[in-house]
Amino acid sequence: MESETILIKNTTIIANEIKKGSILLEDDRISSIEENLSTKDADTVIDGEGKVLIPGLVNTHTHLSMTLLRGLADDLVLDTWLNDHIWPTEANLDGGLCYVGAKLACAEMIKSGTTTFNDMYFYMDHVAQAVDESGIRGNITHGMLDQGDEEKRKAEYKESLRIIDKCHNTADGRIKVSLGPHAPYTCSTELLSWVRKKASQLGVRIHIHVSETEFEVKNIIDTYDARPFEYLDNIDFLDQDVLAAHTVWPSDNEMDIIKERGVNISHNPVSNMKLASGISPVAKMLDKGINVSLGTDGAASNNNMDMLEEMKIAALGQKVNTFDPTVLKADDVFKMATIGGATALGLSDELGTIEVGKKADLVLVNMKAPHLAPYRHPISHLVYAANGGDVDTVICNGQILMQGRKLLTLDEKVVLGEAEEAARDLLSRR
Amino acid sequence: MESETILIKNTTIIANEIKKGSILLEDDRISSIEENLSTKDADTVIDGEGKVLIPGLVNTHTHLSMTLLRGLADDLVLDTWLNDHIWPTEANLDGGLCYVGAKLACAEMIKSGTTTFNDMYFYMDHVAQAVDESGIRGNITHGMLDQGDEEKRKAEYKESLRIIDKCHNTADGRIKVSLGPHAPYTCSTELLSWVRKKASQLGVRIHIHVSETEFEVKNIIDTYDARPFEYLDNIDFLDQDVLAAHTVWPSDNEMDIIKERGVNISHNPVSNMKLASGISPVAKMLDKGINVSLGTDGAASNNNMDMLEEMKIAALGQKVNTFDPTVLKADDVFKMATIGGATALGLSDELGTIEVGKKADLVLVNMKAPHLAPYRHPISHLVYAANGGDVDTVICNGQILMQGRKLLTLDEKVVLGEAEEAARDLLSRR
Repeated sequence: MESETILIKNTTIIANEIKKGSILLEDDRISSIEENLSTKDADTVIDGEGKVLIPGLVNTHTHLSMTLLRGLADDLVLDTWLNDHIWPTEANLDGGLCYVGAKLACAEMIKSGTTTFNDMYFYMDHVAQAVDESGIRGNITHGMLDQGDEEKRKAEYKESLRIIDKCHNTADGRIKVSLGPHAPYTCSTELLSWVRKKASQLGVRIHIHVSETEFEVKNIIDTYDARPFEYLDNIDFLDQDVLAAHTVWPSDNEMDIIKERGVNISHNPVSNMKLASGISPVAKMLDKGINVSLGTDGAASNNNMDMLEEMKIAALGQKVNTFDPTVLKADDVFKMATIGGATALGLSDELGTIEVGKKADLVLVNMKAPHLAPYRHPISHLVYAANGGDVDTVICNGQILMQGRKLLTLDEKVVLGEAEEAARDLLSRR
Repeated sequence: MESETILIKNTTIIANEIKKGSILLEDDRISSIEENLSTKDADTVIDGEGKVLIPGLVNTHTHLSMTLLRGLADDLVLDTWLNDHIWPTEANLDGGLCYVGAKLACAEMIKSGTTTFNDMYFYMDHVAQAVDESGIRGNITHGMLDQGDEEKRKAEYKESLRIIDKCHNTADGRIKVSLGPHAPYTCSTELLSWVRKKASQLGVRIHIHVSETEFEVKNIIDTYDARPFEYLDNIDFLDQDVLAAHTVWPSDNEMDIIKERGVNISHNPVSNMKLASGISPVAKMLDKGINVSLGTDGAASNNNMDMLEEMKIAALGQKVNTFDPTVLKADDVFKMATIGGATALGLSDELGTIEVGKKADLVLVNMKAPHLAPYRHPISHLVYAANGGDVDTVICNGQILMQGRKLLTLDEKVVLGEAEEAARDLLSRR
């Protein structure tokens, strides 16, 4: 079979070196990057003039279907938010609603330049269906929590294995499945140990929340006489295949453990600020050589999934928290949102930078706008001045998902209509 | 002469009560708000379906022409940033460049829903020219600093009076001029006292930076044996016509002074975070009954002028800084960006809310987008999920400045082209 080719010409390519040029995509891969490539043999030609080409952004902590809960409850203390709003509403979710919510999230991610995400939620085969249809790339996990209940634990094992069996490496390899124990304070040691063993056996990764709030840290100390990462290390849970979301309250000793075990972090600054959980010591973790990636968390605590906005707020949070404006520079935070994310998902050979041989996951951002003028350092503009609305064209796995801000794999109007209906349905069930 | 009328129909009006309805504008004023108004006599009809109508946003601390310095120098300590980058570049500015930079800023503000700003910079008659052409509303001030030099001081008096004389109440009243002593650490007591006296004499307002950094506070304590607001109160500088930008480090006593004198604050969270100055105790000031408004500061330390983004970051900063997610709720920060700003500029009778009789400064924000679905509390979506790119239509003083994201008073392509050329010219002068 002949390969399908896409040529992007006259663009500014944000690679190791930033330069004007052309890039040729063959099927799902980047096959050539040159100053000038002939357009005559390409099946599709995209003019990148006035735009910059970046690697597709990698959002390493999401709960896609929570888009249906966007704006449902703001400005509340965590307990009230969870117990009175989020959990009672989530109890009424089903596969159909999760599918609609995930499709809305896929539309939102594509429109703001994200091509890969890392999700934890429920009804994950329905989420996988939305991911398959939208053309985006995702790592999905069934969120497991047993709170010491053996029956619940067994049900979680069964559902996790069912999702791995049904969805792992589907959609032309765009969908991967990991194991997703919710957090050390909601999962028993037995469950966590099972996850560790199964992940190693099956060669799948682990996605977990750790150390989101100071309250949680105290809880773990009370229960296990150790801080969260110390406890996880004591039970031999930690390895390079683990991605820990949040990690707002690591001690110096915990950071050393994280570094030594090669654990990956997903920093979620907007959610951590909105819920007043704190500001993670990201600059310090990066200094120690820890791989820190970036995530938006769910739309109920953000309330969007805009990785361009998340980059800016990540940088601002570190600067003001350390009283040092030189920490987490634009380049550093851009790496967190691209190669840092790819590394955190074990996909750094495939994603996260623009290189020949890597997957064709690429985003063109329009730079011809008043808030991005005059044109200067493109990474500064991307981090500090742009927002998701500046994304023009998105390609994932060699397929064009959006061009000129028009979604090509999803019908935006239908997605929005279904989301409104699903949100009404969901709230009417309470 | 017949009055010009614009009718906006089928929209969601964000007034004291949020409701669907129509609104009629006659010349520069809002003349009627009803559930249904007949479209047949209106000169222009705008369909607001799927959009929300908000008061034009008020950005109370800007340096418009600094758009030309956007992205010039990031991630640096304040001293290096100012001494090695900003000041040497600013020394090469002239009226022509400031005009181009201000026009770029006007385009950016209109495109992100700001209809009124409060500016301090140089060559302000050139800035006024840009404001006049763009149709936006602005309070402008010549930034005065003498650093104890008498000759410089007299030149500043002269230039300030020249700008008041030439520009105050021009452009159909859209342009007002205030007096703009830069800050207590750059202006002599003599200059500040002159400003206080002149402002009262002429009935113009005062725009000043106060307490931006902890270093500045120490400097004022060393020089005057009092904290900045204490010193300003000691010299009888403070009154209701004063707007103090930043105010990151007020003590409890200073907050009491601010409250007692009726001083207005412009909170600039992004700039304060980016330069690592700190997070202003806004929640506490609001609790004390102080009027706190919102500003972006100049594009060199932000790096955009997006008030929707600024609202979100303001709320996030307060929550994480107090460890209380219930402070600075969406409604509170929305008020800061609208009626709080109008009040800070002495224009609360004219601007800041949607009411019959007030100026027709209105913004339609598109709510039909994946990141704003499902439709729920519109103010939550505006603060936590939207960005400037969601602004669809902007009206100022009864004139449509943008419709369907197309600028009508400015030619966006020309503005962008001139800005690129001016930025090149400016840097070539160093």
